[in-house]
Amino acid sequence: MEHRIGIFGCGTIGGGLVSLLDDKRGYLAEKYGFEFRVCFISSLSRGVLVNPGGVDLADVRENLRRNGSILGMSGARRGPVPADELLREMPVDIACDTTPTNYETGQPSRGVLEASLSSGANAVTCSKGGVGTDLAGLKAIAAKKGVKIRFESSVMSGTPLVSLVRGPLAGCEITRAEGIVNGTTNYILTKMEEGADYASALSEAQRLGYAETDPTGDVEGFDAAVKVCIMASEFFGSHVRVPDVERVGITGVTSGDVSKALSEGRRIKLIAGVERDSGRVRCYVQPRAIEESHPLASVRGAANAISITTDNLGVVTVTGPGAGARETAQGIIADMLEIAGWAG
Amino acid sequence: MEHRIGIFGCGTIGGGLVSLLDDKRGYLAEKYGFEFRVCFISSLSRGVLVNPGGVDLADVRENLRRNGSILGMSGARRGPVPADELLREMPVDIACDTTPTNYETGQPSRGVLEASLSSGANAVTCSKGGVGTDLAGLKAIAAKKGVKIRFESSVMSGTPLVSLVRGPLAGCEITRAEGIVNGTTNYILTKMEEGADYASALSEAQRLGYAETDPTGDVEGFDAAVKVCIMASEFFGSHVRVPDVERVGITGVTSGDVSKALSEGRRIKLIAGVERDSGRVRCYVQPRAIEESHPLASVRGAANAISITTDNLGVVTVTGPGAGARETAQGIIADMLEIAGWAG
Repeated sequence: MEHRIGIFGCGTIGGGLVSLLDDKRGYLAEKYGFEFRVCFISSLSRGVLVNPGGVDLADVRENLRRNGSILGMSGARRGPVPADELLREMPVDIACDTTPTNYETGQPSRGVLEASLSSGANAVTCSKGGVGTDLAGLKAIAAKKGVKIRFESSVMSGTPLVSLVRGPLAGCEITRAEGIVNGTTNYILTKMEEGADYASALSEAQRLGYAETDPTGDVEGFDAAVKVCIMASEFFGSHVRVPDVERVGITGVTSGDVSKALSEGRRIKLIAGVERDSGRVRCYVQPRAIEESHPLASVRGAANAISITTDNLGVVTVTGPGAGARETAQGIIADMLEIAGWAG
Repeated sequence: MEHRIGIFGCGTIGGGLVSLLDDKRGYLAEKYGFEFRVCFISSLSRGVLVNPGGVDLADVRENLRRNGSILGMSGARRGPVPADELLREMPVDIACDTTPTNYETGQPSRGVLEASLSSGANAVTCSKGGVGTDLAGLKAIAAKKGVKIRFESSVMSGTPLVSLVRGPLAGCEITRAEGIVNGTTNYILTKMEEGADYASALSEAQRLGYAETDPTGDVEGFDAAVKVCIMASEFFGSHVRVPDVERVGITGVTSGDVSKALSEGRRIKLIAGVERDSGRVRCYVQPRAIEESHPLASVRGAANAISITTDNLGVVTVTGPGAGARETAQGIIADMLEIAGWAG
């Protein structure tokens, strides 16, 4: 069976997904028996393209590379097209949501996911918006329609967390998950350990594209906090809103703090976590000076890592790259393979 | 459906599996819909017990605790009973192999797995014997019979590796996997960093039960080498025998080497790995001085860790506890859940 895929969003991640799907078509078919055609790509600003027979991915890449848009392609029209309308026009088996995140409303991701699941499509998202504000609601729609929602890349891009707990750690009860889930702040803290002050480390992060022009979402811990909300919902079935997370960013961390910690054999990290103790779920984002021997201490630069505390296994830590287009697209592909029934 | 389980071996791991299954029966049923009965337990020295209606696990635990044997239980008989005979007498859906490992012959694990798969049972093993000497052959029997063979806990006990690559990392191509897969040698090297000499560190490891009376398998790198063979076969489809692994143990590592490395900001670790380069597969076990910032440097004591190099994600590292009865049993349970069709 050829899976019909729809892609919402065509920015860095959506474009990265198109590239990875194009690069790996043969491998995915051969190794996993996963055959697909991308039936639509829908972007607010870059254009909307529908083709029941499958969009030409190489052509999309070329247009994005040349023009930053797919509007010049044959059959393309201007966006936005509401998600539910598009899905009525072109139903798909798997909808991929790569839209950006508003931490408060969860939009546009939340609406895209609701429309996708309601249309009877499985949904995969890398956006924190929908699953960070109403995972339970989205799961309820999915259950009602007999489809799945998957969101591996919403927490650590393609570095496994959600699917790791769900599959390889099945049988374990989780009592805590905490780690470094924001690459931008970890990059800044790493640069400060190398001698930069906060302002110049932030500038460097902005220059490299890790931090946005308004860095508030990262440096004040909002990005990490919404990821904590996803973990609280997925691991503990607990609905937590961003304002409910105990949240301290890194703007108060000085070069003096960093060098004092280093002189004591410690490293300051922005630790984001969720833990359950006697039924109470606690969610936090806070800078913490951890020992050099701590499993999270070797996480440098824009990397991510999470330590999962379990009853059967003790602590398992997974470390991987931070957010990148290809890494995030990989998480989406792993989710799609799972939806397609790949089980080794 | 109630899954019929058979357990081969009733030592530390087999007993640990009985305990964990008994402890988690309710949780496994409620969360994963996994219901089971253990229809036989078969041990060379501790007795053989068959009950189509399900062995009383609490009773088994109590007998093992009191007498180190199940021979006193009603209906128990002396072993050994050949695996194929037992499986004819009492067919099961999932056979769990917890027998010990002979690095050269792969027995008794290999025979147990062949008999199990041939009987039409799915097979789960924590033993390196069968899968370390003939994974391809076992997979061929499984394919012929339409069943599965799973072996997560054969490399890092319950710490995910095989299932991590198969599921959450699906879509990635692996070019290398290397890490610390022998807890005993890592414990010894950690103690040497704390000032012990090799002999006293080894004695301490033996006292704690990490190392056997004859420590050759661990300290000469055989245990790590057979795990490398499993990875070579699983990740690269390459049949490698233990003698083909470039293998150096830790017996030549002196206190001087360890302290010299430490003074240079490095730690000596026994690194086991497999890598593919232009079609050639290289397998190795060797002590190596790695930088303090290396993801494997913070792996202390009897812990295990592997870094997996992929095309889509770069390097992903997973760290967890070393071999313990409960940890290994957890890996077996995760494999059983996957076989039973659990997919979140």
